[in-house]
Amino acid sequence: MKKVLLTTTALVFTAGFAAAEGHSAASITISGEAIAGVKYIEDAAQETTQFLELDFGVSGKTVTDGGLEVGASFDLDLNSGGEAAPDDEEVYISGGGITLTLGDVGSADDSVIANIADIGFDGIGIDDTAEFFFDTTTQNIHVKGEFGAITAVATANMDETGTDASEDYGIAVNYDAGTFSVGAGFTNNADEAGLDEDIETFILGGSVTAGGADINLFFHTADADDFAESVSGYGASVSYPMGALTLVASVGATDLDDDDADFGVGASYDLGGGVSFAGGIGQVDNPFADDDGIMVADMGIKMKF
Amino acid sequence: MKKVLLTTTALVFTAGFAAAEGHSAASITISGEAIAGVKYIEDAAQETTQFLELDFGVSGKTVTDGGLEVGASFDLDLNSGGEAAPDDEEVYISGGGITLTLGDVGSADDSVIANIADIGFDGIGIDDTAEFFFDTTTQNIHVKGEFGAITAVATANMDETGTDASEDYGIAVNYDAGTFSVGAGFTNNADEAGLDEDIETFILGGSVTAGGADINLFFHTADADDFAESVSGYGASVSYPMGALTLVASVGATDLDDDDADFGVGASYDLGGGVSFAGGIGQVDNPFADDDGIMVADMGIKMKF
Amino acid sequence: MKKVLLTTTALVFTAGFAAAEGHSAASITISGEAIAGVKYIEDAAQETTQFLELDFGVSGKTVTDGGLEVGASFDLDLNSGGEAAPDDEEVYISGGGITLTLGDVGSADDSVIANIADIGFDGIGIDDTAEFFFDTTTQNIHVKGEFGAITAVATANMDETGTDASEDYGIAVNYDAGTFSVGAGFTNNADEAGLDEDIETFILGGSVTAGGADINLFFHTADADDFAESVSGYGASVSYPMGALTLVASVGATDLDDDDADFGVGASYDLGGGVSFAGGIGQVDNPFADDDGIMVADMGIKMKF
Repeated sequence: MKKVLLTTTALVFTAGFAAAEGHSAASITISGEAIAGVKYIEDAAQETTQFLELDFGVSGKTVTDGGLEVGASFDLDLNSGGEAAPDDEEVYISGGGITLTLGDVGSADDSVIANIADIGFDGIGIDDTAEFFFDTTTQNIHVKGEFGAITAVATANMDETGTDASEDYGIAVNYDAGTFSVGAGFTNNADEAGLDEDIETFILGGSVTAGGADINLFFHTADADDFAESVSGYGASVSYPMGALTLVASVGATDLDDDDADFGVGASYDLGGGVSFAGGIGQVDNPFADDDGIMVADMGIKMKF
Repeated sequence: MKKVLLTTTALVFTAGFAAAEGHSAASITISGEAIAGVKYIEDAAQETTQFLELDFGVSGKTVTDGGLEVGASFDLDLNSGGEAAPDDEEVYISGGGITLTLGDVGSADDSVIANIADIGFDGIGIDDTAEFFFDTTTQNIHVKGEFGAITAVATANMDETGTDASEDYGIAVNYDAGTFSVGAGFTNNADEAGLDEDIETFILGGSVTAGGADINLFFHTADADDFAESVSGYGASVSYPMGALTLVASVGATDLDDDDADFGVGASYDLGGGVSFAGGIGQVDNPFADDDGIMVADMGIKMKF
Repeated sequence: MKKVLLTTTALVFTAGFAAAEGHSAASITISGEAIAGVKYIEDAAQETTQFLELDFGVSGKTVTDGGLEVGASFDLDLNSGGEAAPDDEEVYISGGGITLTLGDVGSADDSVIANIADIGFDGIGIDDTAEFFFDTTTQNIHVKGEFGAITAVATANMDETGTDASEDYGIAVNYDAGTFSVGAGFTNNADEAGLDEDIETFILGGSVTAGGADINLFFHTADADDFAESVSGYGASVSYPMGALTLVASVGATDLDDDDADFGVGASYDLGGGVSFAGGIGQVDNPFADDDGIMVADMGIKMKF
């Protein structure tokens, strides 16, 4: 994402900050991305729809005398589905390869483990069923450690005023060797509606660059005493760049009896200047019904500022 | 509107963007306007009220290698009426004089056709009755073509997830000769509450500079099978600049039997630095009642950043 | 607060503004602060909770040819309590030491009168009971006059569309001699729920620097015909800086029969770069119950960008 940095060094004209400027690295950054295009979902109430999403972010950061990086950020996101509010506030402290983030943080597994690439300008959902138990925990504490090629993340949850924390937690670690990466994680998802027991999920994901293609592989298996048996989801995606054009193919499935594989193919064309045109087509299946899948497709423009 | 451009060229200090900088024209802009003052509406529940409105906008744009300009924008608007949310998200692609915009776009007629200038720092509504069928369509697709002195706009509507599109559409064209302009448009307004049939409106508007004055003229006529007969609205406004002071007079009316003309006079004084002081007074009439009009007035400050 | 000034002079690259640039001082500023930490409230539904708050602000200002400074501002604040919306819109005009502000303005008493410093990174509420009638009026007009060491503020309230103004008003004046300051104010709080008459409050506050410590003193007394007798609240706080470390102690109380004093001690450590670590512990008492107080504490990080 292209970021626009507003440094206090260059831009502060208000009097009285001279003393602070000497050692301050404080800055506020605005960044932005947008997508716009058309989506198709077979048999939906509206089959062909327009979709826009703008994701702008505002972040501030500074550095203490002791060398800790400290910052805060929030998002200004708007989309055709009616999202239009500042949200995702976070505050972080970082030093010595360890970053502690509080607030609307991401999940441990989704922070580091490679997973199935979706297809299209916004995503047609090829990965949704196969990754059903991925990125599902609630958390407001996120600790990340970066140790050379290894990145490890742990997340947990604590009470906020008016809200008892669930006992969700997650741990995940990834090893990135440059030409390949492999990651593993474990999450505990508590207090899910309709379940008496926690869902425990083990996740494996990796990526490898081979023959000019970027290949992602993903597997996870979830279990709870409420389940008749454990449920596994898995899949793979291949991304093949050819100059400005990149072709993508994805497939995902579960071991549920009535679930057919979801699959799709797509392409993205880099127009330069941070702009690309992308689209894809595929088939997704209801994993709980012995039926045929439905066709899904999208096509649109993506841009970064 | 004065715009504050944050160019990535000048301000990006984050490492790793050097390669992208060479051909990128990506930037994020923040702009802002504000008004504040006092409004008077005779016989209103609150006759004399304070009114503020802040209209800030955030927009990003970039240029593809092929020379297409691509961008996205949204507004951060707040006013005394309780408006306070990010909204009006749009994404556009522009090249060769043609601009395609998706999202919360404006109507075709209001995009190009000159109409009756309102009076005062925020507007006392002299033009509201006379322009009742102007700028009333729903649309999320907006195509504008600029061909020398001619600008043409077409708008249409497509489904969004959860929302069936109405069959609204509009087309409008304007010819700007410098000393005068003339525009015409047609809109179809479907699915209006209480009506079985679409409202079809034909609009004419123009402006001319003569004797040091800027004069706007407006006419539109709307018909639907539900109407007993077609309804026309029309009006004119004159703006006369004298140094820092500009005087404005406006009049608008319809051909409804019980409607008296709405009219008003106002003044604006340019204080420099993007700041002006403006006010106006006038009379507006309920078009459906055989009564006298009410007095309306406002006075306040306007600024641009 | 560290401010990031985006001057139009340095940053406007859009064509056509050259003429305006010559005399324009228009600019848009983004500023930001954030806090994050942990709070403890004895016997609360959630005793130990995470709390974050991001307070970002956007403001525009410009200067007229006649030398008046004119501006508008709003806030983008988010916190763990669910606040997440643009709000606090204001427009001001300033010249000759007088500033008129309209919109979501602050109260007269809180604008200038020194009061009891709270304890901790976000505040554990030591001052809440003792200052119960402080900063309680509604207003949308704020006039401030600065005359050397003297600052005076008056606030009042006028109708907005759909909202009848209460008859709240306030006046306050502060004298700042450098080593000490003293302020006084009077507020009228009308239309309070459950009361037939207005609450009239007289406020005194001051600060003095002595022996290396900053001491604040506060007293106010409120009366209404509905009250059996007048109610007074008062307190003091001491802030003692020792290099990067600052110790703070506060005490507050009322003259209600069942109210015990609230008190607390805290510390703040300046980490440099606009970052500090702060915490505190204290006891607060229900003023209407003959009971013991509860323990409150917090600890966290504060930062400015």
